[in-house]
Amino acid sequence: MFFASDNSGPAHPSVLEAIAKANEGYTFGYGNDDLTRDVADQIRTLFEAPEAAVYLVPTGTAANALALSILCQPFDTVFCSDRAHIHEDECNAPEFYTGGAKLTLVPGGDRMTPERLRTAIEGEENRGVHGPQRGAVSITNVAEIGNVYTLAEMKALCDIAKGFDMPVHLDGARFAQACAALDCSPAEMSWKLGIDVAVFGGTKNGLMGVEAVVIFDPKLAYQFELRRKRGGHLFSKHRYLAAQMQAYLADDLWLDLARRANSSAARLYAGLQDNGVTVLTQAPANVIFFELALGQHKALMAAGANYYLMGDENGSDDTIVTGRLVCDWSIGHAGVDAFLAELNRLT
Amino acid sequence: MFFASDNSGPAHPSVLEAIAKANEGYTFGYGNDDLTRDVADQIRTLFEAPEAAVYLVPTGTAANALALSILCQPFDTVFCSDRAHIHEDECNAPEFYTGGAKLTLVPGGDRMTPERLRTAIEGEENRGVHGPQRGAVSITNVAEIGNVYTLAEMKALCDIAKGFDMPVHLDGARFAQACAALDCSPAEMSWKLGIDVAVFGGTKNGLMGVEAVVIFDPKLAYQFELRRKRGGHLFSKHRYLAAQMQAYLADDLWLDLARRANSSAARLYAGLQDNGVTVLTQAPANVIFFELALGQHKALMAAGANYYLMGDENGSDDTIVTGRLVCDWSIGHAGVDAFLAELNRLT
Amino acid sequence: MFFASDNSGPAHPSVLEAIAKANEGYTFGYGNDDLTRDVADQIRTLFEAPEAAVYLVPTGTAANALALSILCQPFDTVFCSDRAHIHEDECNAPEFYTGGAKLTLVPGGDRMTPERLRTAIEGEENRGVHGPQRGAVSITNVAEIGNVYTLAEMKALCDIAKGFDMPVHLDGARFAQACAALDCSPAEMSWKLGIDVAVFGGTKNGLMGVEAVVIFDPKLAYQFELRRKRGGHLFSKHRYLAAQMQAYLADDLWLDLARRANSSAARLYAGLQDNGVTVLTQAPANVIFFELALGQHKALMAAGANYYLMGDENGSDDTIVTGRLVCDWSIGHAGVDAFLAELNRLT
Amino acid sequence: MFFASDNSGPAHPSVLEAIAKANEGYTFGYGNDDLTRDVADQIRTLFEAPEAAVYLVPTGTAANALALSILCQPFDTVFCSDRAHIHEDECNAPEFYTGGAKLTLVPGGDRMTPERLRTAIEGEENRGVHGPQRGAVSITNVAEIGNVYTLAEMKALCDIAKGFDMPVHLDGARFAQACAALDCSPAEMSWKLGIDVAVFGGTKNGLMGVEAVVIFDPKLAYQFELRRKRGGHLFSKHRYLAAQMQAYLADDLWLDLARRANSSAARLYAGLQDNGVTVLTQAPANVIFFELALGQHKALMAAGANYYLMGDENGSDDTIVTGRLVCDWSIGHAGVDAFLAELNRLT
Repeated sequence: MFFASDNSGPAHPSVLEAIAKANEGYTFGYGNDDLTRDVADQIRTLFEAPEAAVYLVPTGTAANALALSILCQPFDTVFCSDRAHIHEDECNAPEFYTGGAKLTLVPGGDRMTPERLRTAIEGEENRGVHGPQRGAVSITNVAEIGNVYTLAEMKALCDIAKGFDMPVHLDGARFAQACAALDCSPAEMSWKLGIDVAVFGGTKNGLMGVEAVVIFDPKLAYQFELRRKRGGHLFSKHRYLAAQMQAYLADDLWLDLARRANSSAARLYAGLQDNGVTVLTQAPANVIFFELALGQHKALMAAGANYYLMGDENGSDDTIVTGRLVCDWSIGHAGVDAFLAELNRLT
Repeated sequence: MFFASDNSGPAHPSVLEAIAKANEGYTFGYGNDDLTRDVADQIRTLFEAPEAAVYLVPTGTAANALALSILCQPFDTVFCSDRAHIHEDECNAPEFYTGGAKLTLVPGGDRMTPERLRTAIEGEENRGVHGPQRGAVSITNVAEIGNVYTLAEMKALCDIAKGFDMPVHLDGARFAQACAALDCSPAEMSWKLGIDVAVFGGTKNGLMGVEAVVIFDPKLAYQFELRRKRGGHLFSKHRYLAAQMQAYLADDLWLDLARRANSSAARLYAGLQDNGVTVLTQAPANVIFFELALGQHKALMAAGANYYLMGDENGSDDTIVTGRLVCDWSIGHAGVDAFLAELNRLT
Repeated sequence: MFFASDNSGPAHPSVLEAIAKANEGYTFGYGNDDLTRDVADQIRTLFEAPEAAVYLVPTGTAANALALSILCQPFDTVFCSDRAHIHEDECNAPEFYTGGAKLTLVPGGDRMTPERLRTAIEGEENRGVHGPQRGAVSITNVAEIGNVYTLAEMKALCDIAKGFDMPVHLDGARFAQACAALDCSPAEMSWKLGIDVAVFGGTKNGLMGVEAVVIFDPKLAYQFELRRKRGGHLFSKHRYLAAQMQAYLADDLWLDLARRANSSAARLYAGLQDNGVTVLTQAPANVIFFELALGQHKALMAAGANYYLMGDENGSDDTIVTGRLVCDWSIGHAGVDAFLAELNRLT
Repeated sequence: MFFASDNSGPAHPSVLEAIAKANEGYTFGYGNDDLTRDVADQIRTLFEAPEAAVYLVPTGTAANALALSILCQPFDTVFCSDRAHIHEDECNAPEFYTGGAKLTLVPGGDRMTPERLRTAIEGEENRGVHGPQRGAVSITNVAEIGNVYTLAEMKALCDIAKGFDMPVHLDGARFAQACAALDCSPAEMSWKLGIDVAVFGGTKNGLMGVEAVVIFDPKLAYQFELRRKRGGHLFSKHRYLAAQMQAYLADDLWLDLARRANSSAARLYAGLQDNGVTVLTQAPANVIFFELALGQHKALMAAGANYYLMGDENGSDDTIVTGRLVCDWSIGHAGVDAFLAELNRLT
């Protein structure tokens, strides 16, 4: 019943196997090795993007902040949801890596609507050099309270960005889970919509810690390399990043693991609804926000469940609070059923 | 005969074993796990520094730049050797993480002398707000062309820094190799000399990619945590960093591996001298700079040797060039002897 | 009828006289002159703050951004109104000078309420190192759509900031106009409320271009000097900044000019209301936001009036738009009456 | 006998007259006024550069740092003399405005030689992403210890920069004095040599505080505007900057004042040599470095002379020290003769 995060569970065994295999012998550092080149080629093939530049970094925050740093200038602003990870959970990393760009928050939940995005962008139009310039749009899929944008919804946002000549960043920490939920290809969820730089996340889907940054305009590639090094994110023993990604790509493990996570979450989602629980996530992949009474929460935790409570834990037992349940690839139906049984006992 | 770098060889098998073991079950992310806490405790014990804050980051550049960012201000300058890694090989990461501090280069090889350090510091004294302020001193041991500072030499540099009220950073990417060469304890090579923040490197000594930053003044700890997160260096699946370090600390593996590397290098060093080769490194640990003719270099490469040439490869066969030989823990005497035999054949 | 801004009109004649007088003879640069020292002393006396550090800079953006840079860290966030000049009109200068701090916007108009400020601050409390830290609160008086906070309102905001251990910045580009409107002393509108750094603006009140930054905690002073120099804001011929401020302080010119500006605005305000115009500013000093039909606006401009329209000028003649009228010290009652007569003719 | 700096003396009377004239009436702010436009046109004409973008900023540090910020990236390095003002006297402003670029110092005095510049550039060539990238070359004329580069010398440096595809910045804080010394036109000393951005300084030549930044590639213009605003250097009452520059351009006042300064310095230079003084500046304009005994220095100061001593004042009377004499436009032959007489009395 460990639903705290999709970074809580184990890496898939094949990831460790790939690392063990990559550990043999000697090679050059800093990505100048065959395995790294091979993995980049595979990702280009997977994304149907033969010209794309592909880089591996160890964390999602690094991937997002570096991606934004090649898309916008220090005097720009980035438009994103007011729930975006780049705003809420990266301790000013985007501001740091861009050299001081601003984030303009689009209100209304984790999925921006085209209207609200347009309003926000138009709100930055009249001030010339006095205000920040329109820099980039950042979309997250799976979004922060667990909702999956449809391809049409993403396309509508990309179209608005392009209408204002802005590039689009995709925070894909859960790229695989979104792809699995939408039953689409990586290309369909990225450059075919107008995404300029996509993060193809692995850490939240069974890897130890690797994200691929896929840059569809190769002119931006070398700058990314320099900024990655400058940020301290160029691994000398790069093969250990590459090996993880190799395992991830083999036999579409990335998709298989994402489907497992989503399947567990779907079972959980159905069970929550069967128990009459208010579920806040409307279009889930592997993350579900729900409401419960604080008393119930305490009972669940006492019974061995683990998940995050959003907000204050200091209230009376009947205070309604919000919980977040995340299924990782490994959680399995047994864990879900145990949790639902516990919940059922309480309601 | 792979002497390109101490990041070229495999990780020690026990590192992979520790990762496999850490991979079992579920835990909280971002360093909030027992293994991380345990490893930090062990490092405090190893350094005889019960109050120290200890953090793990994946690369040496991250470790150095983050360390400097908590020791100095954007309007300061950091005094270091003109061969320092923070100057030559980090693509402006120190400038980035400090918010624009300058590096003042102390000339004269990879080991600063007290006199030259003092001269450099005094050179920054007369300009008030016009020039940068004296921020920190950065020492590297093992230094960049392979020399090991003695404890007395380090102490003399620390004393000068302290005389100017400056903190001292130790770039310890090869901390273990220096300790092994000096036959001293980590405490003797750090806080007992006046070091304020030490990097205890693992990546160049048999780990996949982990450096511990040891901060002897706990008041600087939380700022480091924030800057680490802001730099994208806080791993969500932190246990995989901690597991590597766990293996490194067990049975003093760090020291054992460093001794193996140094022993190979000592054999190599003796062999070079026996062959009449000009060796530029005077007080080596596991890195040796030497001179050879370009023709010899080509022959060695053709025979299967691998190492870096510093400078231009385009010259006549009798041009004298500089090569760098690095022994990692795994290289063994066989590799050394093969290389020396090849060299002997040429001379 | 030139109401475009309080930077549109002439400097007061005595300012030019003071400059002419300061122009005699030779002196040392960079503020190391008697006039600068004397002016700083006078400001300390005016603010009843004998320990305060006082610095002159040429623009309000420089004053604000430098002030924030000594009050918060790159990993912090600054709480301010969503209409704040530091957010809307400084092209990311606060983000630049702080090294990438964020601004957290408090919604609801140009005057933050204590409740909304508290809500915003509490909203940044649960994320540990993942979110930005609480850095500072920034208050503007006179605020951006012309409203003057009462001393009690400012005190309530300062109290909240202090309750969270945060320093408070006062953007006082129109410090004098607020003081005049509140009939209070500079001390009463600054450190007596809990303000830590106040900008005492002159540019919008009859100077050519000088703002004094008054830092009540002298421990922050030297850092300000360094950051000022690093930002390129330390004037070599500093006496020309000091001379302006000298004139400003003599015989309370600052207060006299502010009262003139406020008096013109009060006459304008009354006239607008007499004409049945919807006035958006509720507690004005010398800035008034009002509504009018686009057709009226065009007629006023054709008749020679000058002021800024907020928003789109492309609409039908009966579209309701917002205008901003600013009275500078020199505008006088004649200008006001001419404008009102024109408006009266239209309504 | 006030030779401390060319920022020590008065502004030329016509500057104050122009300000008084500009002070009449109302106008728009932030450079959106006729006087500013007119002055920019005049500078384009003066520089024979009809496409150039021209901006006014208040200080030389701002001019230099902003210029560099549009010429290079945060991961670059700027090549300059190890005596360059941007290195020694701007408290890390270039590092700040560029977002953390490095300065690579070319040794050997205030005038770089082509050979030394080339060596420094080639020294940054072998490290790929590990080292900073070649960003820009920065030349100062008049250089820091008073030497004037010939046009041929500047051309040789520009040619080297262009050979490495690097843009060139000209720190022209004393642009006029160099032009006067070389008897050349502004175009001949800037874009005709390959300079990409030139600072046309006024502050050290009779203005109160204005530098024009002349950007020969108009594609860089808007970025400069944004960075100027973000740095807090866009004056709202811009006409007071423009008025100073207007006076400076009228009847070639800039050239007239520079000639006066150079003429005083030439008289001083001859007198020093007549007295057997060791003069360190070889090709002077209005700045002269010379050697004297500390006892002589004390006597000169006691007699009312003012100038800066470089280095330590604490020594015995016969310690040889270095003094810097700067003639501003107003110093006149009387001041020079008085100083020489005093010196003559001592030697």
